Amino acid sequence: MPTLYLTRKEHFNAAHRLWNPNWSDEQNYTTFGKCANPHYHGHNFDLFVCVKGQPDPETGCVMDLKVLKVIIRDEVIDHLDHQNLNLDVPWLAGTMPSIETVAVAIWQRLSPKLPAGVALHKITLWETQNNFVEYYGE
Amino acid sequence: MPTLYLTRKEHFNAAHRLWNPNWSDEQNYTTFGKCANPHYHGHNFDLFVCVKGQPDPETGCVMDLKVLKVIIRDEVIDHLDHQNLNLDVPWLAGTMPSIETVAVAIWQRLSPKLPAGVALHKITLWETQNNFVEYYGE
Amino acid sequence: MPTLYLTRKEHFNAAHRLWNPNWSDEQNYTTFGKCANPHYHGHNFDLFVCVKGQPDPETGCVMDLKVLKVIIRDEVIDHLDHQNLNLDVPWLAGTMPSIETVAVAIWQRLSPKLPAGVALHKITLWETQNNFVEYYGE
Amino acid sequence: MPTLYLTRKEHFNAAHRLWNPNWSDEQNYTTFGKCANPHYHGHNFDLFVCVKGQPDPETGCVMDLKVLKVIIRDEVIDHLDHQNLNLDVPWLAGTMPSIETVAVAIWQRLSPKLPAGVALHKITLWETQNNFVEYYGE
Amino acid sequence: MPTLYLTRKEHFNAAHRLWNPNWSDEQNYTTFGKCANPHYHGHNFDLFVCVKGQPDPETGCVMDLKVLKVIIRDEVIDHLDHQNLNLDVPWLAGTMPSIETVAVAIWQRLSPKLPAGVALHKITLWETQNNFVEYYGE
Amino acid sequence: MPTLYLTRKEHFNAAHRLWNPNWSDEQNYTTFGKCANPHYHGHNFDLFVCVKGQPDPETGCVMDLKVLKVIIRDEVIDHLDHQNLNLDVPWLAGTMPSIETVAVAIWQRLSPKLPAGVALHKITLWETQNNFVEYYGE
Repeated sequence: MPTLYLTRKEHFNAAHRLWNPNWSDEQNYTTFGKCANPHYHGHNFDLFVCVKGQPDPETGCVMDLKVLKVIIRDEVIDHLDHQNLNLDVPWLAGTMPSIETVAVAIWQRLSPKLPAGVALHKITLWETQNNFVEYYGE
Repeated sequence: MPTLYLTRKEHFNAAHRLWNPNWSDEQNYTTFGKCANPHYHGHNFDLFVCVKGQPDPETGCVMDLKVLKVIIRDEVIDHLDHQNLNLDVPWLAGTMPSIETVAVAIWQRLSPKLPAGVALHKITLWETQNNFVEYYGE
Repeated sequence: MPTLYLTRKEHFNAAHRLWNPNWSDEQNYTTFGKCANPHYHGHNFDLFVCVKGQPDPETGCVMDLKVLKVIIRDEVIDHLDHQNLNLDVPWLAGTMPSIETVAVAIWQRLSPKLPAGVALHKITLWETQNNFVEYYGE
Repeated sequence: MPTLYLTRKEHFNAAHRLWNPNWSDEQNYTTFGKCANPHYHGHNFDLFVCVKGQPDPETGCVMDLKVLKVIIRDEVIDHLDHQNLNLDVPWLAGTMPSIETVAVAIWQRLSPKLPAGVALHKITLWETQNNFVEYYGE
Repeated sequence: MPTLYLTRKEHFNAAHRLWNPNWSDEQNYTTFGKCANPHYHGHNFDLFVCVKGQPDPETGCVMDLKVLKVIIRDEVIDHLDHQNLNLDVPWLAGTMPSIETVAVAIWQRLSPKLPAGVALHKITLWETQNNFVEYYGE
Repeated sequence: MPTLYLTRKEHFNAAHRLWNPNWSDEQNYTTFGKCANPHYHGHNFDLFVCVKGQPDPETGCVMDLKVLKVIIRDEVIDHLDHQNLNLDVPWLAGTMPSIETVAVAIWQRLSPKLPAGVALHKITLWETQNNFVEYYGE
């Protein structure tokens, strides 16, 4: 049986700020530049969730895309869309909400929710049209 | 002499919130939904500035794109990028920072700065991949 | 008060076939080529609905995008998405479902449904990444 | 000698339907939803073919892109473009034409046709702007 | 009968250089910067050709897209693709090959070739993802 | 500590030509077709630089994107943008400037410049919207 990698794209619009509370203001502004602005800025984040599995012989599909969409919305999008990543998301509280941090947190939320026979393979998170991160769970 | 329309694309990442201070909280949330969240959300805004003119016979160009880029950066991008549109921009203070409002304000800032012989024709402002506004100065 | 043009993008996936029942098979295949295939082919159609109006002073917006989205979905997307444009859509029955025909039909359905003070300005319908039509209601 | 991965993008527009003939209508509609519509729907499919090899010292290229394009067109695009994947393609007959199934079938057709020294590495098949599959031949 | 605007996208890859032979080297470099480099640079140009007409009642189409594609290829793409716009194109000889100049020249070539009942409406020429010109024939 | 892959996109516009000086003209034109044109052609090249590392616990980031951007500009973009890849770039002199060759050369320039704890993972170089290469340093 062949193994296929199935990817679903979702997106969310959110505000965030890069700021380390253990540092002086000066160190924060030197390190993070405009990303440290106190009143936040924001992005249209694009999220690609890639799962790995063998197609079901009865359906020809690795998994039902409608089910995958609902899992991503329930676990991730409804928590992040039109929110402030520093202030509004319990499962990001106390972290630096860089795309690296958010991608790892999304992995941890989605991985246990996938149906039997399907494994989470990669989280890709775009912050702008010019930068993104990928995380494989390791 | 032919008339051509020349467009330059720029972008900025910013936070904003839709909120009418003359309304009750309930009316704000009913009207603006998630866009009213008190801690702001944000977007990658794409800005297209379209100018109209006749090509200079010596250069073949309506205007120097490097000059247009500098005008847009000095008048708009440096004021909006990585900022909070509700709190950080003097020329948006006291307005509802919808893309309609921001597009009109950008027109008013850019229009008087263009060189002789070139007229501002259209401001196009994308908020997400699914919605944008256009303004022709009228 | 400034006039702004607000555009919302939606999409639908559908099958269709170009075929004139008054013509011979030969004339159909000569005219429409692969687009005449009897078992249909299909596209991911992108629909841009542009409305024109003055921003409401209380909201800063030409109209509520959530309302526009619901109108487009109720009147257009729910009728066309994952359907066969030749066979499944009562308001396209008996027509040649080219993008020209579909764009005009979408205009006729949406135009009377917009709220007071807002006028439909343009329907743009992309069939592939390489071709689209625009219709201004005239 | 370095190993490079060279990718060529092609596309085709086709109709399909997800339907298991061993199931009741009810089970089909429950499982596949709108994708089971009896008159088919369709998509603009984007196909990325990735091959792996070492650049030829005389040409600097892994393989001639014109040759790769011809192979993909002869073996895949000319068979699928403007066709019905359920009814019109002998090498998909009797299968469920999900993108998983089609990606594997494309791999099997292209893999033996590549020139010596070049190996097929990955087939990527986009069905909409929001979902795609990848297959590595295993 | 409704009037529709039909657009076809094509592209070509070419080299060019901005250089005014009546000027000193210094004036050229000051004016055109990197675009004046003596060994040329190049772009992937995207060309959108928009025509205006009423759909034929028998076909539902403003014109046959295959015919439009052939006209654009015969008159424009085959002359410009993989060429040097300063040196290789007789109908650009002696001009400054800015996108303004090229767009006007494309208009002049295409306009007389369109079939009866169809008028050229707009030429749009993208030079990079960040700048383009539009020309309406006036 | 998780390992993340961080990618930054940059672009450059350049001219090039595929031509093997050890071959006859006929062999060059037969092999490279339009890409052998003596006056060069050009592209808008998109470059994606992917680095691999563990996020710094103090910043949440694999590395500072501003630093990565400066390294890419200093080592690559400032050398290639608006240049002729056959004639103007010392570190490509004597090579066939295919995207395979350029991608390997970019790897060799960037790899030693990255900060401690961060490794270059992949260079992706797009030549047109339809073809690109990937190189992993092996």
